[in-house]
This record gives sequence, C-alpha cells and structure tokens, in this order.
Amino acid sequence: MSLVIVGSLAFDTIETPTERRERIIGGSCSFAALAASYFTSPQIVAVVGEDFPQDFISLLNSRGVDTRGVTHEKGRTFHWEGRYGDDPNQRTTIRTELNVFQDFKPLLLPDYAAADIVFLGNIDPDLQGEIRRQAQKPRLVAMDTINLWINTKPEALVRVLKEVDIFFANDEEVKMIAGELNLIKAGNTLLSMGPSLVVIKKGEHGALLMGKDFMFGVMAYPCESVIDPTGAGDSFAGAFLGYLDQIGSFRPEDFRKAAVYGSVLASFTIEDFSVERLKGISDQEIEDRFQALKNLVSF
Amino acid sequence: MSLVIVGSLAFDTIETPTERRERIIGGSCSFAALAASYFTSPQIVAVVGEDFPQDFISLLNSRGVDTRGVTHEKGRTFHWEGRYGDDPNQRTTIRTELNVFQDFKPLLLPDYAAADIVFLGNIDPDLQGEIRRQAQKPRLVAMDTINLWINTKPEALVRVLKEVDIFFANDEEVKMIAGELNLIKAGNTLLSMGPSLVVIKKGEHGALLMGKDFMFGVMAYPCESVIDPTGAGDSFAGAFLGYLDQIGSFRPEDFRKAAVYGSVLASFTIEDFSVERLKGISDQEIEDRFQALKNLVSF
Repeated sequence: MSLVIVGSLAFDTIETPTERRERIIGGSCSFAALAASYFTSPQIVAVVGEDFPQDFISLLNSRGVDTRGVTHEKGRTFHWEGRYGDDPNQRTTIRTELNVFQDFKPLLLPDYAAADIVFLGNIDPDLQGEIRRQAQKPRLVAMDTINLWINTKPEALVRVLKEVDIFFANDEEVKMIAGELNLIKAGNTLLSMGPSLVVIKKGEHGALLMGKDFMFGVMAYPCESVIDPTGAGDSFAGAFLGYLDQIGSFRPEDFRKAAVYGSVLASFTIEDFSVERLKGISDQEIEDRFQALKNLVSF
Repeated sequence: MSLVIVGSLAFDTIETPTERRERIIGGSCSFAALAASYFTSPQIVAVVGEDFPQDFISLLNSRGVDTRGVTHEKGRTFHWEGRYGDDPNQRTTIRTELNVFQDFKPLLLPDYAAADIVFLGNIDPDLQGEIRRQAQKPRLVAMDTINLWINTKPEALVRVLKEVDIFFANDEEVKMIAGELNLIKAGNTLLSMGPSLVVIKKGEHGALLMGKDFMFGVMAYPCESVIDPTGAGDSFAGAFLGYLDQIGSFRPEDFRKAAVYGSVLASFTIEDFSVERLKGISDQEIEDRFQALKNLVSF
C-alpha cells in the first residue's frame, strides 16, 4: 500500500496566552506526514520557498517520508500567524502570507499517481480537485478543509466533495457546509454530498465518525498540558490514513481503530509547539495511549 | 437501598429558537426523580405553592416516587424563565422567581434521614449543608450546583463540597470553582476539595468522570432532534444515582454503567419540552440506547 499526502509545508507564528513563537515549522502536510510516519512511509506533495530549512526535510526523510514531491521555488515559504485564547479551541488568524503557495500547481510524480490512498490536505479546493484527477486508481481518497474555503469557494468545495471517500472537518465546518445546526443532521447532509465517511473533529471533545448505518465516537486523550493545539486535526488525519495504509483494509472496524490512533497522535502534537512532540514518539507511548483510550470508555 | 433527592419542583418558561412554552413543569427534583424512577423508588424533598398541579405529584406517585417529603406552602411555586440560542448548549436566564422557595427549610422525614444515598440537587449550598447534616448514615452523598451559587456563595459551596462523595457540575462550573482552564487539572483540583468522584457534564459532548486513579468518559447519545435541553443534567444525575441505588454497589465499574444510564436518560429528556419524554419510556428503549452507546465507542 502507499499513501500520498498533499498539503502545506509552512512557517507558523503562534501566540498562546503564555508564549509567542515566531516562524516555527507548521503546515498541514508537516503534521499529517509526521503522524502518518508512525504507521507507514507517506509520499508528500508540497511547495517551499528558499527560506525553508533543509533540516526539516531531512527529518522527514529520517522518518521514512518520501519528499521527492516537494517543489522548491524562489521566494518565501507560506506563513500563517494565529493566536489562541484561554480556550484552546478558539483561534484567531492574524495573518496569512501565501508566498510561494500562491502559484502552487501540485503535480503527482508518476509513482505517486499510483497511490492507494490520497489525502488532499487543507488547500484550495480547486487544487484538491486537480490532484484528485491526477490520481490514477486510488482505493481511498480523503480530504480536509477549513472555513476559509467554505466561505470563499463553496462551489469548488462541493465539486471536490463528490469525488472523495472520506471528508475530515471540524464540527463548526460541517455545520456551515450543511447549513444545519444539529451535528448529526449536518453529518448526514454531508454524507449525501459524496463522501461515504465523514470524520467530524471536535477538538478537546474528540471526534465523531459518521457513515451510512455507521457511527463511532472517539474521545480526545485527556491532556493536562495543552501547549499549542496547532496541527491536531492534521495529525489526526495523518495517523488515521497512515494506519489504514499500514493495514490495507477499510472496514468499519478499521475506521474505528484508525480514529483512535488519530486521537492518540493529535494528543502528542498539542503537548508542545510545532512538530516538536511528533519528532520522536516511541511505539510504546502510542500503544499506552491507545490502551488508555480503550480503558477510558469501557463499560 | 434507598435514595433521597432534594431539589426543586418548579415551573419553567422556555424559549427556543422555534418555540415558546409557558409555565411547564420543571425543576431539578422533577427531572432527577423521574429519571431515577426507572431504576428505583426515590423519596423526594421539595416545596411547592398553591398553583402546582396535583396531577404531576400523582404522576410521580404512579412512577413509584415517594412524595411525602414535598411541602405545600401558601403562595406561588418557584418559576424559572430561560432562553436557548441556536447552540442548545448556550442558555440565558431571563427571570428567576423564587416564590415559596425563598423560605424553604428542607427537612428530612425520619425514614428519609436513614437513606443510603442522598442527592443534594441544585439549591442554595447552605440548605444542601443542612440536609447533609440531617442524613444519619448515608453510604453515598452527591451534590449538584450551578454558577449562581459559585458566584454568590462560594464559601458555603466549598464547605458542602467537603462533605460529599460525588460532585456533579458542568465543565464551565468545574473550571470556575477550580480557577483553572484545563479541564483535567480543574477536575483534579475539585477532587482535592472533598469529593472522591467528580462528574463533569459536557452537554452534547457527554460527561467525564474523574476519581483518584480513575477516569471514565461517556458520550452523549447522538440525538437528531434536540427540542429543549432543560433538565438534561438533572436527568443524568437522577439516573446515575437511581442505578447505583438499584444495584447497591459503588465500584468504579458501577460508576461507568451509572454514567451510561445517565447519558441515556438525559438523551430522552432533551427530545421534548419539560418532563414529557420522561413520563413513559420503556425498559427496551433504555436498553437499546445503552447498547447503542456501547456500540458507538467500541473498538
């Protein structure tokens, strides 16, 4: 099996109630690829500018991530600046500098185009659509999005939704797209728009998976120390799809375990800034949290 | 075993985005007693005015609720008016008329004072303390509260916290009392203030139980139709304690099942206004949702 992840390699500037970090590694592809690397060897598609550190590319390679799909362009790397309030679920975008991302035309290398699983991370839905068409015969296509695209490119988003199997989004986004305040009804509306599985991310409240005649709820791992929530959703999706790529099977019981691994990897991500915590987690640490989540909900 | 529930029998006037209902049956004791009645025969302590319908007392009796502890006073019954926004987790109190509740001095009848389980529903913490002292040798004492008492009587609240085994509150309230924004840390702070179990209610996100070396998370049953969230928390507590009274055992595994029954009964309550849905639920309906919640989280 093989997994291609398309998304952003970026710099983030993050302000939390207690700390500010400038130009640290961020981007949907960074988090998703590192999280997936604990289960498989993902291939990534992204663009970086001249200011992006080769060290991070090397780190990805050392974790088995295939970075041949990363384009290096003249100019500066995508930069996002955001602030978290006392409630880590609430974040404000202060600034978005697209930079080299502005003219990004993602292209799948020939061997990438044959991938079994394609993850269209959060980028312009038109680009997601282009990538979708380049994939030759994927067994599974998943996508993520954010409110920016729901507000600015709703038609393009609806078009790409029709062509994917799994849709990842947070609860607010699912309600926005569906135009429905009840989450269960909103999830069912999304299911009627194309995907056969909707993965609703609820931050500290975990995630809800909805399919036809299928529902699964996973808790967030109870973290006493939430340093920086950035990348939690991308880590969830990366681990989810990395696990599916590892086992090569897409049954409802596989989705359940995939979601638990998603929750586990997300719980590591938020314990430090940037991708710090994702650089070296032991298999034992992952299994311990998997078991802890099982114990948390058993009755 | 026996369970005494102290709280309010009241009128509620409820406004939702689509409907307004005036002077319908409400109050913590109404919801808790009805929910508990599916597991045991609770004894209740409350006060009503001359305007309270005897029909509802008869309904309680028909469900096995012992209402000898209800005092009838001259004047009008407690009346709360509230409004829910589009997000059913957000409610605004428009008006609170204490009426006969103003001079309520709850007194346990001699046989009530021998109860095994005492539930101090959401009332003035000084009154909760008085009831606590009247209970002779309870095996388990639980309490609930709301932000009103956290803001206006914090010292009294802290005093009664020391004398209870189980503390029910919603996530915002737990954070307020603990003065701590991280829910897990806040729960641990509460545990150091007296109770051996803290039950954190999170509305549509379910509930989290925290004890020393014990944690359990239960989902909310996924409801497509949320009509009126009033009484969900009281129903949760009533079913939780009713189940414990039925089985007469307070081990961690009992708390887990109690919480699931709590979630199940709360899910019925919110499907209609007032106590309508709690009037006649079949055992099969309860077991079906219990199993559905098990299936929802199994992996």
